[in-house]
Amino acid sequence: MLELRLVQGSLLKKVMDSIKDLVNDANFDCSATGFSLQAMDSSHVALVALLLRSEGFEHYRCDRNISMGMNLGNMAKMLKCAGNDDIITIKADDGSDTVTFMFESPTQDKIADFEMKLMDIDSEHLGIPEAEYHAIVRMPSSEFARICKDLSSIGDTVVISVTKEGVKFSTRGDIGTANIVCRQNTTVDKPEEATVIEMNEPVSLTFALRYMNSFTKASPLSSTVTISLSSELPVVVEYKIAEMGYIRFYLAPKIEEDEDESKP
Amino acid sequence: MLELRLVQGSLLKKVMDSIKDLVNDANFDCSATGFSLQAMDSSHVALVALLLRSEGFEHYRCDRNISMGMNLGNMAKMLKCAGNDDIITIKADDGSDTVTFMFESPTQDKIADFEMKLMDIDSEHLGIPEAEYHAIVRMPSSEFARICKDLSSIGDTVVISVTKEGVKFSTRGDIGTANIVCRQNTTVDKPEEATVIEMNEPVSLTFALRYMNSFTKASPLSSTVTISLSSELPVVVEYKIAEMGYIRFYLAPKIEEDEDESKP
Amino acid sequence: MLELRLVQGSLLKKVMDSIKDLVNDANFDCSATGFSLQAMDSSHVALVALLLRSEGFEHYRCDRNISMGMNLGNMAKMLKCAGNDDIITIKADDGSDTVTFMFESPTQDKIADFEMKLMDIDSEHLGIPEAEYHAIVRMPSSEFARICKDLSSIGDTVVISVTKEGVKFSTRGDIGTANIVCRQNTTVDKPEEATVIEMNEPVSLTFALRYMNSFTKASPLSSTVTISLSSELPVVVEYKIAEMGYIRFYLAPKIEEDEDESKP
Repeated sequence: MLELRLVQGSLLKKVMDSIKDLVNDANFDCSATGFSLQAMDSSHVALVALLLRSEGFEHYRCDRNISMGMNLGNMAKMLKCAGNDDIITIKADDGSDTVTFMFESPTQDKIADFEMKLMDIDSEHLGIPEAEYHAIVRMPSSEFARICKDLSSIGDTVVISVTKEGVKFSTRGDIGTANIVCRQNTTVDKPEEATVIEMNEPVSLTFALRYMNSFTKASPLSSTVTISLSSELPVVVEYKIAEMGYIRFYLAPKIEEDEDESKP
Repeated sequence: MLELRLVQGSLLKKVMDSIKDLVNDANFDCSATGFSLQAMDSSHVALVALLLRSEGFEHYRCDRNISMGMNLGNMAKMLKCAGNDDIITIKADDGSDTVTFMFESPTQDKIADFEMKLMDIDSEHLGIPEAEYHAIVRMPSSEFARICKDLSSIGDTVVISVTKEGVKFSTRGDIGTANIVCRQNTTVDKPEEATVIEMNEPVSLTFALRYMNSFTKASPLSSTVTISLSSELPVVVEYKIAEMGYIRFYLAPKIEEDEDESKP
Repeated sequence: MLELRLVQGSLLKKVMDSIKDLVNDANFDCSATGFSLQAMDSSHVALVALLLRSEGFEHYRCDRNISMGMNLGNMAKMLKCAGNDDIITIKADDGSDTVTFMFESPTQDKIADFEMKLMDIDSEHLGIPEAEYHAIVRMPSSEFARICKDLSSIGDTVVISVTKEGVKFSTRGDIGTANIVCRQNTTVDKPEEATVIEMNEPVSLTFALRYMNSFTKASPLSSTVTISLSSELPVVVEYKIAEMGYIRFYLAPKIEEDEDESKP
């Protein structure tokens, strides 16, 4: 039997909103450790990894490890019906082919339960090795979202270049070129407004803006985003979920001649 | 001659917004008692009844009973041009084939008059007998609107079941099932947030959500809605219009096998 | 070399939003006096004239007069990427076929530069003679915008009639007629809410609402609008840009039989 009670139900709503356009169907894996998901996007280019640790739930009962295949669009439709202040409980009986989402209003005057059929989904869990990154940028998530959106009005790809001084986002399109530089800045009043760069060596990589824009739908989950870059590895765009875990997006860089220019 | 002056003109704007999508053309009936309308929706399934009593108008002159046929879409277009704080006056000369809507800004610096052709509309006034209902539910109108909208994302019909403990709204669709229970609750701080159930016998009826959603467009008119149910009668969904009257929607239940399950 | 630094960058964003739908391509003329534009709309019916005087810029360097042909849609796309509090600098090197827009965030932590190709655009600068107008109406720009929008839901043209008492906006369409009268009113608390009429002789002219609605996109630039009318001349709809200049729209009246009715 599975019963996961999450007081801050709006978290789960935001998680769904951030991945439902990227991934159609996926297996949610439940174990004693937590509630997690790993899935490729529908065009098999980007990878999403979600972890909600068991400690973050008010009540977490998972008798044995199970994997529940769900259509994320349908799951998102159901979670949209939860109020922002509702407590959400995910329930599944052993051997059942359905999952139930229960929404309780704060006053307990309104109780909803939504039942959804589970699906059989073939998926292999990819081992994602711990890696050393050439550069890690932490910046306000709203700023990163704004930059990706702005550059999309000019071009299709973004070159992200990191030096000790700052991070530069560049694009080029039919109507012209654009460069946006965010300087390292750790002396702000609010820590979530800082732009912090940890760099071992300069790096400059090109990515499809379409995916980056999709990743930024997770911005409501966290006021900061961490972008980890290495020239041989997919970029990791990570949004921490307070006291619970994270959502991480992985995307391989585009191989372009332009990319070589900025290498030392 | 007809001259009806309504200080709270926004009321009339809200009334039009709540019925213009349901009814295309209708006769407005004016008498010494008030300004009223009774009309079937364009697919002849639902009935709307509106009453604005003469006492609610600042000035109400209606020399003889008249019936004015109007296209509600056009009337709504004109009323949209009234400011929310404007005073609205409805004027018609005897024997005229036009009606004039006059809008006065609170400062009297802006005066608009909109003239619209009247139409000849065949209609028979249905006598709606006073009835005894098995159950009457009063609840916040925003809550009812939210429930109808949420269930529409899952299914096409709603089963409304009333017991002494509460009212349950259920639906079923391709992606799953949903049940939302609102408990009777009369001990809230604000009376308009109460959910109050008067029940003579349990009742469970099925309705098309499309119509219910259409009715909830009247929610801005009143913070509460009253739903009167009886197994042999159309449901009445009523929104009171403060100090003036009401707007009532009638809809016959669907006859389904499911319905029988919940009967005692 | 050209370098124009505008602290209140949002002004330039608003200017672009107000003309980009009316004019596709246009030459911006820079001289020691200021940054200006004069262009016909794409259907060659309306004329736009913009002036931003050099004194309004924090830094204004324009070594020699130049005319820069730009696609306004593309320019607007780039300016949309500037934050509302950003400082905008327009830069062009002598003989260059590109222009650069630089956006600096207030904290200087984010610096963006957008480079756009210039275009060769044939245009002749029309001399607009100073004229005497029969009537000049100054009124709140939001009120004028609301009236044009409201009348558009009824008809395609507006008759603007000015008398000493007020200004009347009228239209006629399939669903009826509408008249909106704004009375002269100079005794309001805030001067920007006044409606002030200077009249030498009564005037009544007909204009296409489509253009009027387009002009009102400049409303965010100024809380008041000035409408100058003369029976032999195009109307001038002017929005002052605080401490910098103005944007003016010119539109020839429609010649209609209706128009004659109101002439003395």
